[in-house]
Amino acid sequence: MRCITFTTDFGTRDWFVGTMKGVVLCLAPRARIVDFTHEIAPGDIRAGAFALAAGYSFFPRHTIHVAVVDPGVGTKRRAIAVQTGDYLFVGPDNGLLSWALAREKIKAIHALENRSYFLPRVSCTFHGRDIFAPVAAHLSNGVPLRKLGPGCRDLVRLPWPKPTRSSKGIRGEVVYVDRFGNAITNISSEVLSSLKGRPAVFMGRKRMCAVAPTYQTVGCGRLVAVIGSSGFLEIAVNGASAAERLGLRLGTKIGVE
Amino acid sequence: MRCITFTTDFGTRDWFVGTMKGVVLCLAPRARIVDFTHEIAPGDIRAGAFALAAGYSFFPRHTIHVAVVDPGVGTKRRAIAVQTGDYLFVGPDNGLLSWALAREKIKAIHALENRSYFLPRVSCTFHGRDIFAPVAAHLSNGVPLRKLGPGCRDLVRLPWPKPTRSSKGIRGEVVYVDRFGNAITNISSEVLSSLKGRPAVFMGRKRMCAVAPTYQTVGCGRLVAVIGSSGFLEIAVNGASAAERLGLRLGTKIGVE
Amino acid sequence: MRCITFTTDFGTRDWFVGTMKGVVLCLAPRARIVDFTHEIAPGDIRAGAFALAAGYSFFPRHTIHVAVVDPGVGTKRRAIAVQTGDYLFVGPDNGLLSWALAREKIKAIHALENRSYFLPRVSCTFHGRDIFAPVAAHLSNGVPLRKLGPGCRDLVRLPWPKPTRSSKGIRGEVVYVDRFGNAITNISSEVLSSLKGRPAVFMGRKRMCAVAPTYQTVGCGRLVAVIGSSGFLEIAVNGASAAERLGLRLGTKIGVE
Repeated sequence: MRCITFTTDFGTRDWFVGTMKGVVLCLAPRARIVDFTHEIAPGDIRAGAFALAAGYSFFPRHTIHVAVVDPGVGTKRRAIAVQTGDYLFVGPDNGLLSWALAREKIKAIHALENRSYFLPRVSCTFHGRDIFAPVAAHLSNGVPLRKLGPGCRDLVRLPWPKPTRSSKGIRGEVVYVDRFGNAITNISSEVLSSLKGRPAVFMGRKRMCAVAPTYQTVGCGRLVAVIGSSGFLEIAVNGASAAERLGLRLGTKIGVE
Repeated sequence: MRCITFTTDFGTRDWFVGTMKGVVLCLAPRARIVDFTHEIAPGDIRAGAFALAAGYSFFPRHTIHVAVVDPGVGTKRRAIAVQTGDYLFVGPDNGLLSWALAREKIKAIHALENRSYFLPRVSCTFHGRDIFAPVAAHLSNGVPLRKLGPGCRDLVRLPWPKPTRSSKGIRGEVVYVDRFGNAITNISSEVLSSLKGRPAVFMGRKRMCAVAPTYQTVGCGRLVAVIGSSGFLEIAVNGASAAERLGLRLGTKIGVE
Repeated sequence: MRCITFTTDFGTRDWFVGTMKGVVLCLAPRARIVDFTHEIAPGDIRAGAFALAAGYSFFPRHTIHVAVVDPGVGTKRRAIAVQTGDYLFVGPDNGLLSWALAREKIKAIHALENRSYFLPRVSCTFHGRDIFAPVAAHLSNGVPLRKLGPGCRDLVRLPWPKPTRSSKGIRGEVVYVDRFGNAITNISSEVLSSLKGRPAVFMGRKRMCAVAPTYQTVGCGRLVAVIGSSGFLEIAVNGASAAERLGLRLGTKIGVE
């Protein structure tokens, strides 16, 4: 009954995700498969990394987190499995796992090279089915990490855009836009709490809104900034999409003063 | 192996739903989690209420139905758990549960106030993860309702738009538009069967179509009204979207004569 | 713990899919339900048939594959269950199952006529809930196929558009467009390997791109054709949608020379 989660950009309209589950269930009939999300934008490694980092730690210990946002599939990019204190992570070594792993104590990293844990035929375009799903199933069956391939020293790490301090306040940027159009920034509650007084959010010179405890502090249709559920400041519109309203996207600069 | 269903407006592209499942599985590893739907339009309490009412009764006895369409999250709106003859319901007390509960015999309603059944840190924006998921998990483990908080007399009830009778026939309105563009009305098969003769659907003065037994009674691309699978009259186009064709939306008035 | 997969065009935004799962769990509480996909375009029997054929064989033996893309629901089209060497298939007899079954050895076909394996009330519009889900649950409980209804000699078969050979090369067509905008053709790797030299893809007189081993053989934003994970030649753009770029859709003719 070990959990295996999937975080992918495969969407759910084709047979890709269903097929990965079939592969797992052939090898590990009792595995508990959880769809973390399959709707990462195609090839958007940063969005996948952020989503995984935001949610992986809410799962039971020993969960195997499989993430496949893999624009380099079929090239020489490595595939890896990583053991941390509480979890296993499996995916391409392209930075996708790195923001979650930055919060974990890494115990071992192994390259996935032992083909006896893959499907017999490995395609050039669908390693989710042919490599990552069967490897996760074997891990859930107790296969030790070291059997999968040689140990590695480190993994590819996505740079995390750190917010900067100035005399005026903090400068940060949008790192994720969620389904509601809330624009999540890289400014954590810890960083924010270092500011004195009642902080407000700026775009360029323009004051946008105050930082408030909940979306409903403001009237319907009004802008507000709150510390969201992932621990970062997010810009929201009560009942509508802030990203649409303000044209916010990944990398949009914002300030807090 | 108790069932826990989720009905939310969280969508499936972010980490929200996956995280709720992780929380449940930490507390109740053997719970059977079923995605009822996560695609309720953001904040659309009526659509969530209708969907839940249309499907909840097809689940096994003792299923715990968790519904989270919660535009008031973080405000003083209550959160409740409701015991009926066959099921448990958990969600915000904003009317979301009320159309399903109107069909059930309510045995007890309790406010969710005992923080020992929540996650240790409760955010202001994501009670699905921090309150509703862990409460459902504890309920599936057998925690009695009364431990969750004080009993309540009643819950917030959404008004149900009742169809009206006139000398000419019945006047009703659209209460839900489904994925196929079928416009479901508030006119039940019971109400409809009180009409004599061969009924037809009108918008204003204009006769739109006859009431027929199946979509295929009419040719491809033609309008038809049928008693749909939820027991209400629905307006459909064979092979296309009636809502798009006729501009039908929630609240659009229709008549049957 | 027998697997039941669902392949439908019901989408996930309404209560349709959740309700089907509830019906299964009432009858077969230990069944392992897997969403193969619910995002087949409404009524697109060919897309459903292709998706099912592309993935069904990755599931454990004895899996019950339920497919419901059923524009003829409520008419006299038959409903069937089919036993093959390794699997059971359940669905409307409209060709949906036929491309998967063309790869299987069929042992028995039975019409679904015995109402004691249906829900007590069968609607005219939702046989997924009222017929196919309960039949699948009963099959997973071990009910033998012959109890469901009379045996049938054959099923409705969708024509498969075979590629044609000419002196110049092979002419085929697009049979599926996936979420990434990759256009999958009817030209299998076997057919392609019969060509000598380095094949290239043509639309009309115009050479579009070479056939390459992976998407990344070409630079970002460039066209390429590869043998995809389902074993057919597909036309892709590295990092973007080939279908959008070239206006490819079901039935678009292409050549390989």
